[in-house]
Amino acid sequence: MAVEIAMTAAPQTLLQVATPALILDEARLAANVRRMDDHLAPFGVGFRPHVKSVKSPAVIRDFLGGAVPITVSTLLEARMFAEAGFNDILYAVGIVPAKLDAVCALAATGVRMQIILDDAGVADDIAHALAGRSGVTALIEVDCDGHRSGIAPDADDLLVIARTLAEAGVFGGVMTHAGESYACEGADAIAAHAELERSGLVRAAERLRAAGLACPVVSMGSTPTALFARALEGITEVRAGVYMFQDLVMAGIGVCRPDQIALSVLATVIGYQKTQGRLVIDAGWMAMSRDRGTASQRVDQGYGLVCDGAGAIIGDLVITSVNQEHGLVGNRDGTPIDLSAYPIGIRLRVLPNHACATAAQHTAYVLADSSGKVTAHYPRFSGW
Amino acid sequence: MAVEIAMTAAPQTLLQVATPALILDEARLAANVRRMDDHLAPFGVGFRPHVKSVKSPAVIRDFLGGAVPITVSTLLEARMFAEAGFNDILYAVGIVPAKLDAVCALAATGVRMQIILDDAGVADDIAHALAGRSGVTALIEVDCDGHRSGIAPDADDLLVIARTLAEAGVFGGVMTHAGESYACEGADAIAAHAELERSGLVRAAERLRAAGLACPVVSMGSTPTALFARALEGITEVRAGVYMFQDLVMAGIGVCRPDQIALSVLATVIGYQKTQGRLVIDAGWMAMSRDRGTASQRVDQGYGLVCDGAGAIIGDLVITSVNQEHGLVGNRDGTPIDLSAYPIGIRLRVLPNHACATAAQHTAYVLADSSGKVTAHYPRFSGW
Repeated sequence: MAVEIAMTAAPQTLLQVATPALILDEARLAANVRRMDDHLAPFGVGFRPHVKSVKSPAVIRDFLGGAVPITVSTLLEARMFAEAGFNDILYAVGIVPAKLDAVCALAATGVRMQIILDDAGVADDIAHALAGRSGVTALIEVDCDGHRSGIAPDADDLLVIARTLAEAGVFGGVMTHAGESYACEGADAIAAHAELERSGLVRAAERLRAAGLACPVVSMGSTPTALFARALEGITEVRAGVYMFQDLVMAGIGVCRPDQIALSVLATVIGYQKTQGRLVIDAGWMAMSRDRGTASQRVDQGYGLVCDGAGAIIGDLVITSVNQEHGLVGNRDGTPIDLSAYPIGIRLRVLPNHACATAAQHTAYVLADSSGKVTAHYPRFSGW
Repeated sequence: MAVEIAMTAAPQTLLQVATPALILDEARLAANVRRMDDHLAPFGVGFRPHVKSVKSPAVIRDFLGGAVPITVSTLLEARMFAEAGFNDILYAVGIVPAKLDAVCALAATGVRMQIILDDAGVADDIAHALAGRSGVTALIEVDCDGHRSGIAPDADDLLVIARTLAEAGVFGGVMTHAGESYACEGADAIAAHAELERSGLVRAAERLRAAGLACPVVSMGSTPTALFARALEGITEVRAGVYMFQDLVMAGIGVCRPDQIALSVLATVIGYQKTQGRLVIDAGWMAMSRDRGTASQRVDQGYGLVCDGAGAIIGDLVITSVNQEHGLVGNRDGTPIDLSAYPIGIRLRVLPNHACATAAQHTAYVLADSSGKVTAHYPRFSGW
């Protein structure tokens, strides 16, 4: 609303877009979506994109072909996508009873809602609260790699929780997220982690079935394991989010090349730190986020890898440090930049360490083709 | 807008607020504002709060007593505050010609606009562009401590730039920001840095006056130097932003105590990582930000220092790691927590490393008194 006060007319090209701004490369985004489709097609599994990276119903609709089944990380994502016509939602963060009313309110509008849990006490509460209500089923979160949450495939509580939910008529199956796959490097290591994820989850499903419990949903996923899995037997559905954008963390573990990253921040050179031969740009941590996910990788990309205004990687130019609205750009090895090559006012594009974190700093996407022509604007939302 | 769909009624107490949420402690915020007022009163200088931390005109109005002169870091801040009746704005990020139209549009509505620059070429462009327009003056950014931007007090270009601006009738004075004060520790070190900031800036002003140039504005500031300066001779105005909230980075250098921090994130325990004796809460990096500003300080606060639901610090409990919507809470020394003390569903409050970064992740503030009663809701904005 307020932004439009300054816009005398919608920008036609990236040269007219006020900086900093969040840019989506249309061709790269479409190619990233196609790559996942192509990889999963032979396996005959379902796919449920995680919209926490994108947080824009319009982007999902336009690039995934409609109101597909989705995964969400917040109730606001669930509500915003439900309002936009998405009617099959997996809320993939452990439920607590206080959040159940909001879930049921969505289910009451006809949305298929799935929730997750990993605790016997919560299962009791949920089974009780959902008794006599329809449209909500619960999946048990399985821990395949010690990443964060979930119950071990061989834990006694797996059967206890499933029986509690099944008796209430709300048991839907099992799911897992191989978060430790982000620490793997290279196709073979990631494929091995995908097999760890698959086999652990399928073992949990088989234990449940052996105990006489139906387990229709067997859902796994992370961008690395979804793209590099070599077997998906026993899996009904795969989930992934950042694969649409890709980012430098993914490039650092071999999931993509830097020139496949569809998301970048458009910035302007606003000055120099002459004594150190560095540029000052108008993209600081507010535009890039504070994410330093590549700091622990072999190639540290600082706060982002710098490209020219057309999106071509310049070389070893990175954002070396940031304040709120200032970024300092330097060579990775600390040698001074030839400042005369970057006059004040020139535009650069910066690839992010972590696309989810960088996108979260912005209120909209500018979609552009490879010539820099602006082809669409997409709002994105924030909050919970 | 979408948030309200889920709210059947406005929460009366923090127990009813959906988590994660951004909480402002009313008494601490008022005390932090009063502390700055009390410190600066004897010096007889102006004060121009930086609203980049708060990004809410209503909070500034309510806690600073009206539409006071402000400092902004983005054109959106300038527009949003101007729409809310603030009519004296310093845009404290180096101007580029492409952003001048937006500045002039605000000046044309009667807002006193000040911009900053540190480059002779930009000064030429600005002087040319502003010729014949009124309401905009330019300050020269002075570099007092090698932090980021600005021109050295003794640089030849100082006079060149000032003459260019003065001839166009738009020269307003000098300003600096002692960003390196964040690396000082303790009152004496910060006071010494404040004197470095003051003396460098005043030297620049005196050189200009000796050359026959009027230099009405001599503006310095950062939260540490504003609160610990022992002399402000020659300074006309002080700026600071995060002082209103305070945060763990400020506590780490002795600017405040942790129990003076007015900003916290309300979170819910949603599970356990039982093998490691850690809690899982629904505040991950999306709610806390990725800022790890205390990592380089003596006490590393992880992603935030954990308090009980009433805001009392528990001890050495910190967020040890984060994913997008998950935080893992553990003891600072890695020993397991007694999980039975934290049942699923219980609420905690987390003090942030960097208040500006944490606040930026949220769309609103919940103001609460010390009993946990909700006394106001304030929207805050994002973007540029």
